[in-house]
Amino acid sequence: MNIYEKALKAHGKWQGKISTELKMPLDTKEDLSLAYTPGVAEACREIAKDEKAMDVLTWKKNTVAVITDGSAVLGLGNIGAKAAMPVMEGKCALFKRFADINAVPLLLDTQDPDEIVNIIKNIAPTFGGINLEDISSPRCVAIEEALIDALDIPVFHDDQHGTAIVVIAALINALKIVHKKAEEITITLSGAGAAGYAIARMLNQLGVYNIYAFHRPGILSKNEESKYDDVKKEIARITNHGEEILTMEEAMAKSDVFIGVSGPNLIDQNMVRSMKKDPIIFAMANPDPEISYEKAKEAGARVVGTGRSDYPNQINNVLAFPGLFKGALRSGAKKITETMKMAAAKALADLVDDEELEQGIVIPSVFNFEVAEQVAKKVEAEVK
Amino acid sequence: MNIYEKALKAHGKWQGKISTELKMPLDTKEDLSLAYTPGVAEACREIAKDEKAMDVLTWKKNTVAVITDGSAVLGLGNIGAKAAMPVMEGKCALFKRFADINAVPLLLDTQDPDEIVNIIKNIAPTFGGINLEDISSPRCVAIEEALIDALDIPVFHDDQHGTAIVVIAALINALKIVHKKAEEITITLSGAGAAGYAIARMLNQLGVYNIYAFHRPGILSKNEESKYDDVKKEIARITNHGEEILTMEEAMAKSDVFIGVSGPNLIDQNMVRSMKKDPIIFAMANPDPEISYEKAKEAGARVVGTGRSDYPNQINNVLAFPGLFKGALRSGAKKITETMKMAAAKALADLVDDEELEQGIVIPSVFNFEVAEQVAKKVEAEVK
Repeated sequence: MNIYEKALKAHGKWQGKISTELKMPLDTKEDLSLAYTPGVAEACREIAKDEKAMDVLTWKKNTVAVITDGSAVLGLGNIGAKAAMPVMEGKCALFKRFADINAVPLLLDTQDPDEIVNIIKNIAPTFGGINLEDISSPRCVAIEEALIDALDIPVFHDDQHGTAIVVIAALINALKIVHKKAEEITITLSGAGAAGYAIARMLNQLGVYNIYAFHRPGILSKNEESKYDDVKKEIARITNHGEEILTMEEAMAKSDVFIGVSGPNLIDQNMVRSMKKDPIIFAMANPDPEISYEKAKEAGARVVGTGRSDYPNQINNVLAFPGLFKGALRSGAKKITETMKMAAAKALADLVDDEELEQGIVIPSVFNFEVAEQVAKKVEAEVK
Repeated sequence: MNIYEKALKAHGKWQGKISTELKMPLDTKEDLSLAYTPGVAEACREIAKDEKAMDVLTWKKNTVAVITDGSAVLGLGNIGAKAAMPVMEGKCALFKRFADINAVPLLLDTQDPDEIVNIIKNIAPTFGGINLEDISSPRCVAIEEALIDALDIPVFHDDQHGTAIVVIAALINALKIVHKKAEEITITLSGAGAAGYAIARMLNQLGVYNIYAFHRPGILSKNEESKYDDVKKEIARITNHGEEILTMEEAMAKSDVFIGVSGPNLIDQNMVRSMKKDPIIFAMANPDPEISYEKAKEAGARVVGTGRSDYPNQINNVLAFPGLFKGALRSGAKKITETMKMAAAKALADLVDDEELEQGIVIPSVFNFEVAEQVAKKVEAEVK
């Protein structure tokens, strides 16, 4: 059996990867009168007096909704919200395992952005935070922005920022290894969707000025703006400041770093060989990266990261979102700010020691269960 | 400390009465690749091919949403959805404890009926069933009806039907004790909200023809229809067929049975004494019934039930909704029909043996953990 057959069989056995469970006994009349009527009325009255009491008397503060419209599920595309449920449950399981946060999947029966915003606003009182998942670009950016504006709890689209945080952490450490400064380097960024946009923004924030961003038809340039969706327009606005028209080959030859959130086998060994000294390659297309770990290494890349678990430097959002939410919820943050995301990236980078850096390891292992708490602490410190 | 102080303290300790938990390990790369990427993609593909696969591959089929707008919370009134959270969590805990069903609270940030219907429709793909809770009358009836029409999963407003099912069960057994037939008896029904309406409908279904229904201003009569909300109109339509104008005293003197879902101390011992032979009293106002258990007994009532846990015959919805949902979910029912509700009532009645009947016990104990499974079996048998 391959991994897919095994996984299908396991899902059939589990019949759901999460469950709801009781946190107290319900065996006697006394139990029932404390947890339910009549005693429960007192907890209701406390919240009616001051809604902040919800944070202490209910599960709200440590509970997140994982919400999708099923429009961009893994690499499977727009397969609909129902078919996305296994991913949502998996994400909820990760929230629990890595951050001890309760998480509940919610599948939306609409793909209309305004309706999505309206529905989420109207169920938001239930939750301490909202994790948007597998919503297609460019819609996801507008939906997230509208919700951040409307709500006073953290709203976070993991497909955008989760990847961005981890790749920025990896880049911070890779630059230590090759002794280069963010301000001086040039980056080729392949992939102009929501993740590419979030990465470009965090690169800017880190001080990276020279970025060539590519979508399938070629390099993004402000001159071509009229052809782009809103997300690509934004990427064009913050990259390629010389408005150069370059092929991917030409851009790579001018670059110190390649970052891919696009598709399989988009770069070759010659491109890697043409790069500036000590190439850094983060090829995150999943399951098949833009260039394989081995090929990139063989062509002289100094640091290589992929999305795969079978190679070093697995760039996986599970390193970011559990700790980020944990810090945000614990501190009562009303939003997840740029500063909090950058704090998460720096916390991740700090978790790699000098010995690991020497071996080309730039991010912690996914199964380092200390990560979330360390990230949470640094995120919390940024909440005013 | 009284029960309210104790309950508040307990809620502060629990910080939430439910949690989400994992059903499988997430400790190794293998675990992660089965429950999450890449393996999870195969479960998604199966559901994309045939959405029925959700029933086997996800938690949907055994998961219920417990939804409120906070407009009629316990006896506390319209305290808002946030303040209703302790009740919703308690209800979710009951679902788990009594029927092993996962349940998730959802608080709505609107009290507009159309918007409530729209939101619930749009999150419905997530759940195997919808339990509406603490939504005020008459809005709750229209909201429930619209959702039953729109959705192909069970939708159930427990405040209406839960109480009705249990009181009908109690009545079936009480009539055995006093050797009367449903067709021959007369009932005074105090309370013309959603629960009163559901009770009146089930009484009709049981064969009871003579019902005098009262709201605060007096007896309901079709002649006064223009003064009523939609729910009271419906109650007037199916009760008081002689369009008699009676006081509560006069109605009681003609009655075999009193059923109260109204307020404290609305009937006195003289009224009970004036009733036909072997009075049956179900006084369910909570925490203070329409007449106390002792007073009703002292005045000659043959069978007495209340909502209280400290007297025999506690008429509590927890006897109904867990088994009803369990049967409905297990059988894949698309709706909860009148027949299924009546099957639940009869199953409850059947769980009381002759010895108990002799002692005036007409419904099982809330803490008989066999009840839900027995109810579920009978409900299931009614699903085509």
